[in-house]
Amino acid sequence: MLATSLSRRNFLAGIGASALTLPMLTDVFGNPIQSDPSQQGRKLGIALVGLGYYSKNLLAPALQETQNCRLAGIVTGTPSKVDEWKQKYNIPQANVYDYKTFDRIADNKDIDVVYVVLPNSMHEEFVIRAAQAGKHVICEKPMAITPKACQNMIDACNKANKQLAIGYRLHYEPFTKEVMRLGQEKVFGPIKFVESSDGFRIGDPTQWRMKKSMAGGGPLMDVGIYAVQGSRYVTGEEPISVTAQFSPKTEPDKFKDVEETMFWQFQFPSGAVSNSTTSYTAGIERLRASCEKGWFELSPAFGYGPLKGMTSKGPIEQPVVNHQAAHMDGVCKDLLDNKKLPDHVTGAEGLRDVRLLQAIYQAAETGRKINLKA
Amino acid sequence: MLATSLSRRNFLAGIGASALTLPMLTDVFGNPIQSDPSQQGRKLGIALVGLGYYSKNLLAPALQETQNCRLAGIVTGTPSKVDEWKQKYNIPQANVYDYKTFDRIADNKDIDVVYVVLPNSMHEEFVIRAAQAGKHVICEKPMAITPKACQNMIDACNKANKQLAIGYRLHYEPFTKEVMRLGQEKVFGPIKFVESSDGFRIGDPTQWRMKKSMAGGGPLMDVGIYAVQGSRYVTGEEPISVTAQFSPKTEPDKFKDVEETMFWQFQFPSGAVSNSTTSYTAGIERLRASCEKGWFELSPAFGYGPLKGMTSKGPIEQPVVNHQAAHMDGVCKDLLDNKKLPDHVTGAEGLRDVRLLQAIYQAAETGRKINLKA
Repeated sequence: MLATSLSRRNFLAGIGASALTLPMLTDVFGNPIQSDPSQQGRKLGIALVGLGYYSKNLLAPALQETQNCRLAGIVTGTPSKVDEWKQKYNIPQANVYDYKTFDRIADNKDIDVVYVVLPNSMHEEFVIRAAQAGKHVICEKPMAITPKACQNMIDACNKANKQLAIGYRLHYEPFTKEVMRLGQEKVFGPIKFVESSDGFRIGDPTQWRMKKSMAGGGPLMDVGIYAVQGSRYVTGEEPISVTAQFSPKTEPDKFKDVEETMFWQFQFPSGAVSNSTTSYTAGIERLRASCEKGWFELSPAFGYGPLKGMTSKGPIEQPVVNHQAAHMDGVCKDLLDNKKLPDHVTGAEGLRDVRLLQAIYQAAETGRKINLKA
Repeated sequence: MLATSLSRRNFLAGIGASALTLPMLTDVFGNPIQSDPSQQGRKLGIALVGLGYYSKNLLAPALQETQNCRLAGIVTGTPSKVDEWKQKYNIPQANVYDYKTFDRIADNKDIDVVYVVLPNSMHEEFVIRAAQAGKHVICEKPMAITPKACQNMIDACNKANKQLAIGYRLHYEPFTKEVMRLGQEKVFGPIKFVESSDGFRIGDPTQWRMKKSMAGGGPLMDVGIYAVQGSRYVTGEEPISVTAQFSPKTEPDKFKDVEETMFWQFQFPSGAVSNSTTSYTAGIERLRASCEKGWFELSPAFGYGPLKGMTSKGPIEQPVVNHQAAHMDGVCKDLLDNKKLPDHVTGAEGLRDVRLLQAIYQAAETGRKINLKA
C-alpha cells in the first residue's frame, strides 16, 4: 500500500512535468525550483516525533501548505492521540510508531525525514535513532542540552550520510532574512549595539519546560536562544565574550528548578555589543540594531505570527509567510536537490548556540566575564 | 529701571485680575490656577546661567510660551553671546551677568529664579551662589558629579530658604505622567521587568561631555540618568541592588576619558527587575514595562520631541506639550503659590540619582553586585 501510494504520487508528478504545461514551480521565496527532474513535484514524507503543542498547532497545519514535503507519519508515546491524528491527516496505520517501534521506520519508504519535536533532553536519542534508521532529520531548538549531545547527533548523522537541520525557522522567514541583510551588508553602517530579547509569561508550572533535567534550563534554553540567534545573525559574527546575570526569583515555588529571568551581554569581534533579556515571567520580544548611520528593528521578532520591522528610513516591507511551512519547504528543497543545507540551519549551528547558552549560564553563575573561543 | 519694569508688570496684572473678565487661568495640565491673588498673572523672572545648546535651542524658546515665568536675564562666560540674546529676547543690560558679577543678582528684583545650565562640574558652585543670592534655583540634570556636591547644594538652598528644582522635565510631561500612573497604580498588574535605555551617537569629541572632570562620566551621567529615572518612576520603587558592565571601547581615541557604552541591571523590592543600556555610540531610546497582565512602553521615551506610547491594550493618548515650558511652568507655579515642590523634582531626587549613577559605575568597575541602601 505504501509503495502504491508513493508510486501514484510519482506517476502524477511525472505526468505533470511531461505532458502538461504547468506554471513554473517556485520555492517559498519565489525562486524557480531547478531540482532533479526525477524528483520534480515530489514531496518528501515527514514523520513528526512528539505530538505536543508545536506539532499539533504549528507543524501539522503548516504541512498542509508545504510544496516540498507532506505529513506522512507520526511517532508518539501517547496512544490516545493516534486516532485523531490518523483521521485528521489521513495517516495510514503503517506510518504510526511509538517510541519502541520507532526504529522500524528504517523500512518505511514513505518517510524521508524525521522531525524531532520532543522535550530537549530526548533530542539526542531520537536524532541518533532517526539517522541510524537512514532518515534525514530536523530537530527542534535547542538542539540538545549539552554540547556533547550535539556532537553525538552531528556524528551520527554524518556516519549515516544523512542531513541534520535544526528548527531555525526564522532563517527562512523574509523579515528575518531582511534584517540579516541589513546588518551583515552594513546597510546602515557598522552595527554598534544590538538589543535582542525574548520572554513570555509561562503558564502550567508542571510542564517539562520547567524541569531542568528535561529542558536543560529555563527561558534561556527555550526562548533566550532566539535572542542569542538574533544578535548573531544581524551582526553575522560570533561573540568573543559574555557577561550574564540571573535576576532574583519572584515566584520561587514555580521556578524551583530553572531560572525565571536572566540577562546577558555579548561582545563581538567588530566591537558591536549586545544586551539581552529572557524571561518566563515577563513578556518582551525585540531585535534591534543601532548602527553608525541608523537603526533597524523587528518587534515582534521571534514569534510564530507575522513579524513587524522598522528602520530609521521607514518600515520593512516583506511578504508574510507561514514560518513553519517556509522552514520545512526550505530544508526539504535542499534535500530534494541533494544540496548541502546552509551551515546556519544545521547541527553545526545548533552546537554553536548550545555552547553559547552554556557560557551564558556559566557567566551568570560565576559573576565573571567568560571569554569564548572561536 | 528694574523696579519700574516690575511695577508695570504687576500693575498690568492687577488690572487684568480686577477690571477685566479673563478666561480662567490653567496650568499646563489644565488645572485651574488658584494662586495668591496678589501674584495672579505674575510671571517669575528666570535667569539662565550658561547659554549653550540647551539654553539657546530649548529653554529660551520655551520661555516664550510659558504662563508662569519669563526669560528675564542671562549669565554667561562668553561676552560675544550677549548682544544676540539681548536683542532677540529684549533683555536689559542690567539683567546680564558674567561669572564674576553673578553674585550681584542678589540685588536684582527682576530675577526670581536662577536656572543653572552649565557643565555638570559647575552646578555645585553656581547653585550655591544662586541660593546665597536669595534666588530659587533650577539646576539641570545630573544634579552634580558627586553625592557630596548634591548635599552641599541642598544644604545651601535650605539655609537660604529657597527651593531647588532639578531639570526633571519629564515629571511634567503627560506621556511620562501616564506611564508613571500605569506602573505605580499597577494598571496592568505588578511590573515584572523594565527595559529602560537611552543612548545616542555623540558628535564633537572636544565637547565638555567627553571630559570626566567636567561631566563626571560619559553617557551614563548625561542620558543614562534618564534610563535610571525611567525604571524608578514606572515602578515607583528604589532599587535595592545593581550589577553593571562597561562595553569595550570601539573608538578608544574618542572615548579616552569616559565610557562609550554600558549596561546595568537593577533589582527592586517588589521583585521587579530592569535591564538598561546607555551609549554615546549607539542610538536607543525606550522605556518598557512588562507586567503580569500586559505591558506598556514609550519610544521615544526621553527626548525633547513628542513622546509616543503603546500598551498591550492600545496606544497611549496624551496631549503633546513643550517639555521645557511644562517643566518651568510647573516649577514656577508652585513657587508662585509658595508650595513645596514635589519631592521627585527636587534636589533630594537629584541626590538619589547621583548616588545610583555612582553605584552603577562601582558595580561595573568591580564586576560585583552592589547592594543599595534605602
